[in-house]
Amino acid sequence: MAQTLTEKLIKSHLVSGEMVTGKEIGLKIDQTLTQDATGTMVMLELEAMGIEYAKTEASAQYVDHNLIQVDNKNADDHLFLQSATRRFGIYYSRPGNGVSHPVHMQRLAKPGKTLLGSDSHTCANGCMGMLAMGAGGMDVALAIAGEPFYVKMPQIWGIKLTGKLPDWVSAKDIILELLRRYDVKGGVGKVIEYYGPGVQTLSAMDRHVIANMGAELGATGTVFPSDSEIRRFLKEQGREKDWIELQADKGATYDLQEEINLSQLEPLIAKPSSPGNVVPVTDVAGTPIYQSYIGSSANPGYRDFAMAAEIVKNKQIAKGISFDINPTSRQMLTDLVKESHIASLLQSGARLHQAGCNGCIGMGQAPATGRNSLRTTPRNFPGRSGTREDSVFLCSPETAAASALTGVITDPRTLDFPFPKVKAPKSPTIDFSLLDPPLAMEEARRVELYKGPNIASIPAMDPLPDQMELPVLLKMGDNISTDEILAGGARVLPYRSNLPEISKFTFEIIDESYYTRAKELATKGGHAIVGGFNYGQGSSREHAALAPRYLGLQVALVKDFARIHWQNLVNFGILPLIFSQPNDYDLLQQGDILVLNELHEKLANNNEFTIEMKGREEKIRVKHSLSPRQLEIMLQGGMINWIKQKQN
Amino acid sequence: MAQTLTEKLIKSHLVSGEMVTGKEIGLKIDQTLTQDATGTMVMLELEAMGIEYAKTEASAQYVDHNLIQVDNKNADDHLFLQSATRRFGIYYSRPGNGVSHPVHMQRLAKPGKTLLGSDSHTCANGCMGMLAMGAGGMDVALAIAGEPFYVKMPQIWGIKLTGKLPDWVSAKDIILELLRRYDVKGGVGKVIEYYGPGVQTLSAMDRHVIANMGAELGATGTVFPSDSEIRRFLKEQGREKDWIELQADKGATYDLQEEINLSQLEPLIAKPSSPGNVVPVTDVAGTPIYQSYIGSSANPGYRDFAMAAEIVKNKQIAKGISFDINPTSRQMLTDLVKESHIASLLQSGARLHQAGCNGCIGMGQAPATGRNSLRTTPRNFPGRSGTREDSVFLCSPETAAASALTGVITDPRTLDFPFPKVKAPKSPTIDFSLLDPPLAMEEARRVELYKGPNIASIPAMDPLPDQMELPVLLKMGDNISTDEILAGGARVLPYRSNLPEISKFTFEIIDESYYTRAKELATKGGHAIVGGFNYGQGSSREHAALAPRYLGLQVALVKDFARIHWQNLVNFGILPLIFSQPNDYDLLQQGDILVLNELHEKLANNNEFTIEMKGREEKIRVKHSLSPRQLEIMLQGGMINWIKQKQN
Repeated sequence: MAQTLTEKLIKSHLVSGEMVTGKEIGLKIDQTLTQDATGTMVMLELEAMGIEYAKTEASAQYVDHNLIQVDNKNADDHLFLQSATRRFGIYYSRPGNGVSHPVHMQRLAKPGKTLLGSDSHTCANGCMGMLAMGAGGMDVALAIAGEPFYVKMPQIWGIKLTGKLPDWVSAKDIILELLRRYDVKGGVGKVIEYYGPGVQTLSAMDRHVIANMGAELGATGTVFPSDSEIRRFLKEQGREKDWIELQADKGATYDLQEEINLSQLEPLIAKPSSPGNVVPVTDVAGTPIYQSYIGSSANPGYRDFAMAAEIVKNKQIAKGISFDINPTSRQMLTDLVKESHIASLLQSGARLHQAGCNGCIGMGQAPATGRNSLRTTPRNFPGRSGTREDSVFLCSPETAAASALTGVITDPRTLDFPFPKVKAPKSPTIDFSLLDPPLAMEEARRVELYKGPNIASIPAMDPLPDQMELPVLLKMGDNISTDEILAGGARVLPYRSNLPEISKFTFEIIDESYYTRAKELATKGGHAIVGGFNYGQGSSREHAALAPRYLGLQVALVKDFARIHWQNLVNFGILPLIFSQPNDYDLLQQGDILVLNELHEKLANNNEFTIEMKGREEKIRVKHSLSPRQLEIMLQGGMINWIKQKQN
Repeated sequence: MAQTLTEKLIKSHLVSGEMVTGKEIGLKIDQTLTQDATGTMVMLELEAMGIEYAKTEASAQYVDHNLIQVDNKNADDHLFLQSATRRFGIYYSRPGNGVSHPVHMQRLAKPGKTLLGSDSHTCANGCMGMLAMGAGGMDVALAIAGEPFYVKMPQIWGIKLTGKLPDWVSAKDIILELLRRYDVKGGVGKVIEYYGPGVQTLSAMDRHVIANMGAELGATGTVFPSDSEIRRFLKEQGREKDWIELQADKGATYDLQEEINLSQLEPLIAKPSSPGNVVPVTDVAGTPIYQSYIGSSANPGYRDFAMAAEIVKNKQIAKGISFDINPTSRQMLTDLVKESHIASLLQSGARLHQAGCNGCIGMGQAPATGRNSLRTTPRNFPGRSGTREDSVFLCSPETAAASALTGVITDPRTLDFPFPKVKAPKSPTIDFSLLDPPLAMEEARRVELYKGPNIASIPAMDPLPDQMELPVLLKMGDNISTDEILAGGARVLPYRSNLPEISKFTFEIIDESYYTRAKELATKGGHAIVGGFNYGQGSSREHAALAPRYLGLQVALVKDFARIHWQNLVNFGILPLIFSQPNDYDLLQQGDILVLNELHEKLANNNEFTIEMKGREEKIRVKHSLSPRQLEIMLQGGMINWIKQKQN
């Protein structure tokens, strides 16, 4: 039977389950990618699990998020990551080398492979004919340890590209068009597969732009064919041997179908504050801006920067505009310097920043209050820029550069000069020092982890007791997000590799006394919390499970769970229970004591059982939906204990 | 009588006083310089004083310190500064244009002029045959308003330079040699004047290096002659017309004399944690480093970066070293890009940062805990890098680049290749957009100040009452520093332009309840504080007077004052009184109420008088040392009221 490329990639990596939409499948993971904001915890998890050496074909750790060193913490984390990569057989990309996604593409990506990364834009490397997916830190740690990645079999959404982009319209406008049509949930549960004659008109880096922002559609992944252009790209990177041809079989059918005629596209822009809030640039042309920002993994290509440089060349940007240039890799920055594009940008009045994620994740370059910021980045959620009530627009480099010149949002087609042609560099730089290769296993075994004062190992966790009396420390309402469980931001994030410290912020937004009360009970059997519907929605950060577990949370009893947080609770051995009758929620108050007896037997034999409240007559009917594998994990006190058992 | 160049500069600007060492002189100020960390308050002071338009020949505001925008505050400050410069007739240098001192030198410095700046390294422009001095913000605000600057007539210290620097030894080693000989207090009360045949072997930017770190010797200023090299520099900047020849008269004599034979110098290094802790590099060669840092106003020249680039060209820096490149002006960065030096640095593995002060003032690039950082910056005081208990060494670009290659502190003379020759750029860039020129007065009058939510005007201050009853809110010991009165650092500094907010941190380190107690009394007549010897030592920050004044501090009664803080108290209308008998300090307790009657008459007629304590028999004898001019300022409630009165 004719197969889509996505089906081929899945089939060649399937280790468990059936390829039936919505059913759980287990996939072999060939490569992993971690960045520093999530990677420190991944490395601590490898340590806690007792992993000896990465079992993947290639795992790489990038330092691209926390480049602002205002005290010792980030610098110490970089040294920790360097030592951990040497210890565990992982590639290490130093601070200043660039953003994980384009650097991985340049140095390690291979058509036909699977890539799992602890960064939501890991899907970007789908441009290389890979199945590339974002996941939580523990999932990536398990993949490094050689475990499969479990995911529901996605729908496969075929998008046919026809025609050719007009002048002044570029890859960013293609993905903005898809967001205009389908909004930010349009890709949930799907892998997006591009095909058709339009694909060959797009460079590998153009495809990266499109695959990257599949994350904004909520897609599980984005897949492009591996064709002659990917061969050209790999040859340019000195890796032609890594190329294989890959495409969908003729006559393959997709679960869903869509078509985009590139010839008919125009410059688009996502208005504040959602990537799905897309309109033609002409709709908002003339709006004054404060900032024009070039960079990020959503526009990482040489051509994206060179195009901006050609547009502003021999001109001055409008007075008072902050024109921020954020190169995406040191290798590419070197070429942009050599080909005089950086000189053009500087002479126009640009601010040149070091290679990295930078302002895209709110690390610097936050806009002024109430001023409009135009960015080539992937996201404009409220406050992501660092400024509360910010006003961020997402667009192509052409639109951003044109607007820097005029000081107002400008459709680049209205500029009074011809569309500049960007030439590829004559002899592109290949910078092998972007990645320090892993040590051989024998040498790696002798490496000691370097831990600065802010880095704390993950403490050992006990197996799930068979009998517990758990006071309810918090009773919460519906839609509690992981941001409320454990906030992000510049105040909290520096402690991401220090569980004892970061745990002090747990539930702080809901109840400042929680930390003290929980800590007191932590060695006396722990506690429970009660919540409403959609408990744990929002960001996937695993610290929102790890921190309360550290403080003794044993049971979360709610009306229902958000999917990823539910998974994280299981990973860290917190029993996720659901009220069989949502109304029983009303029976419970803060301070009530849940009594759980013969728990192991009840969990094993029933999906549903009864628990008592100390000193009260009423009983509460609860259920769980743990698979046998998950139940095993839970009984052992979480994934770290389970994998330790399994590997030894 | 034959005059030194310093005497000529002073004489041509003398508006009051006699040129007798130690006596107060008033000097006309031709130019001012402010940076963003101090400039926001200077602009608020201009607003509060009702200044219409700068009366200097040129005043310039640079944005170089607070370039890290993690939220709206710094970005809002930049916009405020931009609006204020337009309002008050001041040049504006945008973020990313570079560090104040080299940019001022490139675009505005003129031989024969005086320059006052609210940055301690303002003395750097003494390299141009100017009398350039650092001062507090209010002093600079007054200079902008056309008022003289008052300073004690310095001793003049003639330093004769002979010989010529050997290969691998550069200007930084000259000033380190002086710090080795005289340590960090060696220049206090002195202007250092360089002369002799060695001067002509040094470029204008080399002289900048030496003049800049006059601040580390504690000198009032550093003066170099304006010779053919300064003419060449000004010509290169398109400003040959600004050149005049200036040097000491033949036979001029100096108060103090010293000589340095450049031919005999070797590479030097200041060990942690003082710029005066200088030894030959060979003494510490082999010490492992974590970081090599190039940049800052202490090594701002094209040749400093080009030399580092030539040393690492076609080589790779040692693994794990953070090699941080911090260009000092956008104009120079453009030339470094054009001449391929940036490409050499990047290919060696460097991290390229935006033009600005950056890590030199702890804004990013903080080293990891316990690791050695090698920097071309001027200061290595403990914690200045951002990392507590840091370990920072100061050295030349040659030593820093050599050590980046080897990973250990390295005497560059021991490298196994010849001393690289650095050529000047073929056609140096002149970037006029570095400075937005001031608006004409008519247009300036129509400009409104832009104030983001974090910018608060300075509230009006009342004249000094004739009668007061003041509870003593704090009784402190000896050597209270301005850091204890109002801390610096990343937690407090973002509020530097918001008096109501920053005042919440006043005396926080000494007594957390002070703010609440003071605030309560602020509208009920205010309060007093009592201190010991050397009250107000340390940093010159004027917020340490302004914030307690805002909270109602009327009288500071101590055993004696540190000089600058005493001046700041006067500027902001806080009466500085001294115990006539230090033992009376023991009579007073927190909570005692000082009763001051007929205060105006007592202050005017006596330097010494008696104050009572409510409900107690004992009386306390106090004195003051205010000049008649200062008394007038005090009676009016501080400098802002005084200047308003005077100007209207």
